[in-house]
Amino acid sequence: MRAAAPPKPREMGTSPGCGPLIPPLSDTARPLRQQIFERVRAAGQTARASLARDLAVSPASVTTLTSELIEAGLLEEIATPREADSGRGRPAVALGVRAGAHLVAGIKLSDREHTAVVVDFAGNRLAGEAIPRQPGPMTLPELLDAADALLTRVCASAGIARDALTAVGLGVPGFVDAASGTVHWSPVITERHLPLVPHLTDHLGLPVHVDNDANLVTLAELWFGAGRTLSDFAVVTIEHGLGMGFVLNHRLYRGARGIGMELGHTKVQMDGALCRCGQRGCLEAYVADYALVREAQTALNLPNRDTLAVGALLESLYDHAKAGNAAARSIFHRAGRYLALGLANVVNLFDPGLIILSGDRMRYDYLYAQETLSEMGAMMLDTGRPAPRIEIHAWGDLLWAHGAAALALQEVTEAALDAARAVP
Amino acid sequence: MRAAAPPKPREMGTSPGCGPLIPPLSDTARPLRQQIFERVRAAGQTARASLARDLAVSPASVTTLTSELIEAGLLEEIATPREADSGRGRPAVALGVRAGAHLVAGIKLSDREHTAVVVDFAGNRLAGEAIPRQPGPMTLPELLDAADALLTRVCASAGIARDALTAVGLGVPGFVDAASGTVHWSPVITERHLPLVPHLTDHLGLPVHVDNDANLVTLAELWFGAGRTLSDFAVVTIEHGLGMGFVLNHRLYRGARGIGMELGHTKVQMDGALCRCGQRGCLEAYVADYALVREAQTALNLPNRDTLAVGALLESLYDHAKAGNAAARSIFHRAGRYLALGLANVVNLFDPGLIILSGDRMRYDYLYAQETLSEMGAMMLDTGRPAPRIEIHAWGDLLWAHGAAALALQEVTEAALDAARAVP
Repeated sequence: MRAAAPPKPREMGTSPGCGPLIPPLSDTARPLRQQIFERVRAAGQTARASLARDLAVSPASVTTLTSELIEAGLLEEIATPREADSGRGRPAVALGVRAGAHLVAGIKLSDREHTAVVVDFAGNRLAGEAIPRQPGPMTLPELLDAADALLTRVCASAGIARDALTAVGLGVPGFVDAASGTVHWSPVITERHLPLVPHLTDHLGLPVHVDNDANLVTLAELWFGAGRTLSDFAVVTIEHGLGMGFVLNHRLYRGARGIGMELGHTKVQMDGALCRCGQRGCLEAYVADYALVREAQTALNLPNRDTLAVGALLESLYDHAKAGNAAARSIFHRAGRYLALGLANVVNLFDPGLIILSGDRMRYDYLYAQETLSEMGAMMLDTGRPAPRIEIHAWGDLLWAHGAAALALQEVTEAALDAARAVP
Repeated sequence: MRAAAPPKPREMGTSPGCGPLIPPLSDTARPLRQQIFERVRAAGQTARASLARDLAVSPASVTTLTSELIEAGLLEEIATPREADSGRGRPAVALGVRAGAHLVAGIKLSDREHTAVVVDFAGNRLAGEAIPRQPGPMTLPELLDAADALLTRVCASAGIARDALTAVGLGVPGFVDAASGTVHWSPVITERHLPLVPHLTDHLGLPVHVDNDANLVTLAELWFGAGRTLSDFAVVTIEHGLGMGFVLNHRLYRGARGIGMELGHTKVQMDGALCRCGQRGCLEAYVADYALVREAQTALNLPNRDTLAVGALLESLYDHAKAGNAAARSIFHRAGRYLALGLANVVNLFDPGLIILSGDRMRYDYLYAQETLSEMGAMMLDTGRPAPRIEIHAWGDLLWAHGAAALALQEVTEAALDAARAVP
């Protein structure tokens, strides 16, 4: 399934030290080379003429830049059947991402299970693994061992050696400064302000990149999902917590100082319900798993909540609601109303064209029932324009690991594009 | 005070139709020419060598690009005293923005008064006017007449003819789509979804650009205030309503579809206080003028509220609070707590390094009392990092008009930079 070992970029995440002095790219500036690469990636295959037309640049510029990208091993030419509508005799040549250029792994550590995938440079999944675990925070050594074991297992499953990987992306829930690789707080880690990236890089022997789970889902949408062809969209995730990611001009927006988009901890009620973050009135204290669970015991009149795991308890609550239990229904109803409020706040602040609701809890259709969406509409500013499109993506268990792989792909791609630029 | 009539860009707001095909700039991409211009503008005066060093580009590139900008009439050379620390004999030559390159007017229409300024291309104010008015929404003809009268008056005050202006910026409160020039709703306009820009352009005989008031204040900070040297910051304004602007990578961020940052209408209480937008629980329904005024009558036990204008009523309420009136204090206390909640939400979502609190109401120091800022800190995510810096800017009456002038300057500058790029 793989081509020869891919060329590794000279240095991960930084510009190479040679070549002409070029100003550092701001986070949102997108040079033409990158725009070309991203369009090819998004389209799967595309012709040079289409690139020139879509980007409004000369065919000569496209030829020059795509030659550089081919020489750097990132793109490849693909012979396609003669275009039916062109009427010309030449066989058309399309460009595609060279799948074998790089392999990366994505790992997601969470409370109930750890997951991992290996994907190639074109985003194809070579292997995926999920390992259930006992809930609770891990010490650093436990975390390193868990990541190490997962990586060994998923590489074996993909039939590759670990050093065939160019990079690893790893996600955890919580507050993560992706730029510095520091996890300030995570429910799955005992330590605070942990500089996780150097520890992992050292322990795994590979470049590692870390981000939080909502950003991973957003990257998964950007690289593999609905966001491939969109420049701006919002993603809201609901699981144990409520997260948000935002793509602005084809890039994940992380806030001006690296930790933003914490929609779940925006306050929707002064002195309101207690959140697991320790504060009161946070949106997720009305919508996330734990918010539902703590009322479920009352609604279902359970003698001993501990006999049911969170997932089973929520399933039971959902079954009771569907069967007409008024108390169970009111729990979902209230959560849906607060979700609507949170989504309306997203619209009023960001005015996105698309909001993707993503995550396992999207199986509970109360969250996007017509009633909820109507409520959201009633809390949005009435500007006379149509509401943003809402898409529901109930991805499978490996979603988060795919997002972690997208994080690694993003870093590898940027380093590779920088390296391509520096080719003399 | 003025140089000869400035060269007008060939077409406002669009790229000229000649020259090589260049891809349209995305909102956040900042070509080097623009970065150079913005650095000179921000610094007031700067040497070519500093530009090369700060932007990490070759002196030759800086010389080429600054020559283009000088040729296009945007920058000029300024002889400065020999640099004391250089030890060399040559007189230093700095670059500055050519003040006379363009003149623009800024107009702000609001409920209680209309204001206007004329500024030159370097941001110097040549004249400013304020005209009090009877509150209430205007019809389109009334609005056009008001803008016309203001423009005549402020041009006379500046001693210039109207056609010496390159463009006019105009601000109104409400929901404005700046890209299309449409005012979807404004408390000072009777019509909804009004395409104001073509009407104004036609009536005033000049290119006109329109935006909402919070964006104007943000542009004023970006062009003339604390934002001159910052790439990312948030501005929160409190007056009759509560507004927000956000600068991302040196540019005003308007939301993905043009109407965003409506912090005042984010919901902070399900089914809460009635907002003037018609919905319930909006932040501004707890913080803005009208929210305070409707409780002031109760607190001050006024027989007839109509005898006091809003401003006088708020002043009276403030005086009573300072004198120890518990009910009056509780009104400001609650408003301060909700402002803290709103600011904490801004921090949790955007993670800005700086929040500027701007507007006339900042004279009421309860809004940024230590108690309020502590409360904000308690509602921010505890990431272990310091809270963002908060600055208080109680600008004068002409702030908003200055922001409208900044809007015009921004459009004129972009058109001029586009035109400079197209010079063969």
